[in-house]
Amino acid sequence: MSKYWSEVVHKLTPYTPGEQPKGNVLLKLNTNENPYGPSQKVLDSISIANNNKLRLYPDPESDLLKSTIANFYNISSNSIFLGNGSDEILAFIFQGFFKNKLPIIFPDITYSFYPAYCSLYDISYTRIPLDKKFNIDLEDYLIPNGGIIFPNPNAPTGIPKTLVDIENLIKINQDSVVVIDEAYVDFGTESVIKLVNKYKNLLVTQSFSKSRSLAGIRLGCAFGNKNLIEGLNRIKNSFNSYPIDRLAQTAGIEAIKDENHFNETRDKIIKARAFLEKELLLMDFETLPSGANFIFTKHKLKDGAIIFNKLRESGVIVRHFERPARIFQYLRITIGTQEEMKKFISILKRII
Amino acid sequence: MSKYWSEVVHKLTPYTPGEQPKGNVLLKLNTNENPYGPSQKVLDSISIANNNKLRLYPDPESDLLKSTIANFYNISSNSIFLGNGSDEILAFIFQGFFKNKLPIIFPDITYSFYPAYCSLYDISYTRIPLDKKFNIDLEDYLIPNGGIIFPNPNAPTGIPKTLVDIENLIKINQDSVVVIDEAYVDFGTESVIKLVNKYKNLLVTQSFSKSRSLAGIRLGCAFGNKNLIEGLNRIKNSFNSYPIDRLAQTAGIEAIKDENHFNETRDKIIKARAFLEKELLLMDFETLPSGANFIFTKHKLKDGAIIFNKLRESGVIVRHFERPARIFQYLRITIGTQEEMKKFISILKRII
Repeated sequence: MSKYWSEVVHKLTPYTPGEQPKGNVLLKLNTNENPYGPSQKVLDSISIANNNKLRLYPDPESDLLKSTIANFYNISSNSIFLGNGSDEILAFIFQGFFKNKLPIIFPDITYSFYPAYCSLYDISYTRIPLDKKFNIDLEDYLIPNGGIIFPNPNAPTGIPKTLVDIENLIKINQDSVVVIDEAYVDFGTESVIKLVNKYKNLLVTQSFSKSRSLAGIRLGCAFGNKNLIEGLNRIKNSFNSYPIDRLAQTAGIEAIKDENHFNETRDKIIKARAFLEKELLLMDFETLPSGANFIFTKHKLKDGAIIFNKLRESGVIVRHFERPARIFQYLRITIGTQEEMKKFISILKRII
Repeated sequence: MSKYWSEVVHKLTPYTPGEQPKGNVLLKLNTNENPYGPSQKVLDSISIANNNKLRLYPDPESDLLKSTIANFYNISSNSIFLGNGSDEILAFIFQGFFKNKLPIIFPDITYSFYPAYCSLYDISYTRIPLDKKFNIDLEDYLIPNGGIIFPNPNAPTGIPKTLVDIENLIKINQDSVVVIDEAYVDFGTESVIKLVNKYKNLLVTQSFSKSRSLAGIRLGCAFGNKNLIEGLNRIKNSFNSYPIDRLAQTAGIEAIKDENHFNETRDKIIKARAFLEKELLLMDFETLPSGANFIFTKHKLKDGAIIFNKLRESGVIVRHFERPARIFQYLRITIGTQEEMKKFISILKRII
């Protein structure tokens, strides 16, 4: 508390990210990072850019990175927006499109940064409960609203929606922006980027942190109609002219270009996820169907918080959410390498 | 224009940064970058950090970088805040401390991002005219206000204020936050960081872009009473958990530690500035006294816009501001190396 704080600062309920342990842990499966490093071509490009030119500002528009992404997705560069991580982009989206008379809507169980953005920009919101099976039922979203946002696949459940269902929502919901947060889309969920040219009210966000193995470099992107992208650019240019540094721009370009590395690591993660799901089933866990690089699971009998703490004592960090009560028994487990998943299962067996 | 934009987006008047030319130019003297590259120790530390760990999120609190800076300035870590460039920090400051009933005040000729932040956060402001000699007269700031901000030295004039004058203002102005934007302070202006422990209403911002030669890496910091820093942290954690990437954190640490590189390059720039000032005087230019790594100058007879364009045709980019009318005749010239300044003078002589 301080008399110097603006009113909004007092009201904030900041987001709490998953722990980034400073010591070594046996298995870090709590923040959905990729178990594989970035492409060697990414590391090489950073080496090349690591020179005296760091004294110079980066390209404020990141044009080369934009055109590389545009080429990859076969869309226009002016349908692309870049940010210092997709969280920054989400913040701009909330400020730029969601401050309306009607409340925005999002699932009751979802990325917990959304309500933090709402408090930052004084945006009213309504949480729509997931159905009994933890699905987002898009029928429930056909109500007057100031905007719609949900992750696809949803987090922390991992459950994906189909493109057909999402397109139907976008078609009906023409009066506000529909934002599909595709942070985890590359692990077996269908992207709706292909709908961006078709609808003026669709924005898609993606991240380089997960499927491109670059959480440490901070890079995210958004795809949308050029009027929406222009809105984001107006905010960005009233906030920070140079959000993406020189090394991140070159890293992003090579990460997009190295499709082999992307495909290989993604396929291995999807395979390790199937292995983990099978093993957990044998151990009486109930796991939600995942289209992400994590799974959301609970044991039929044992308490989630106790398992979480015992894993921690064994040097294994997963994510456990204290609220809401409905997910208290669940653990969110990041998919690691096959070897890490084997090690995880053997430790879990000992605990259970 | 788009029906999907929130009201604020329509009202924005985004900041226009100095041009970042994509082709090669002979002399780039328009955005106050350092003519010397960063410390070799910075480049080495980036090489070391350029590895598979880029798959992992950075430390969200940048604790090691904070403690390195704290040690350097002999203050506490919880008096320090870091951002993705000092522009991001300024944005948070405007949102966090300046949204008050009374308008904030800043000079009429100053960093032109300030009014852009005001439009982004719907903050009212009053511009206080510089005096006849382009000085900030702090007597004029002793009026009821919702906050005060100015750069020291001021930009684009380069004229510094003394610590005594600023302390006097802070002492009298206890009801709102006084922000001293020290982006250019290291080039011969006295910092007021030493006052941070003494006053609860003082915030100081600094940048790694100029004196630390790291414009390409995006890093800025703020210094203030822990209650003000807590306010900034509340905003940051409602906006983006991980603003500073892994490579920027290590680069920042080494940039602070290598005092020799810092002192040597700074001294060379100050010497080159004195050389440029002397040469310009001989050519009938009137140059304002500078405590920055740029000078603000006009020719006694020749038109500023014409000189600007002729320099441009010769491959030399400096900065020229079309508004306000009072500075239309002036050019802002970034200080380069001694050799660059010699080359600049020889081209300028030809033009004049």
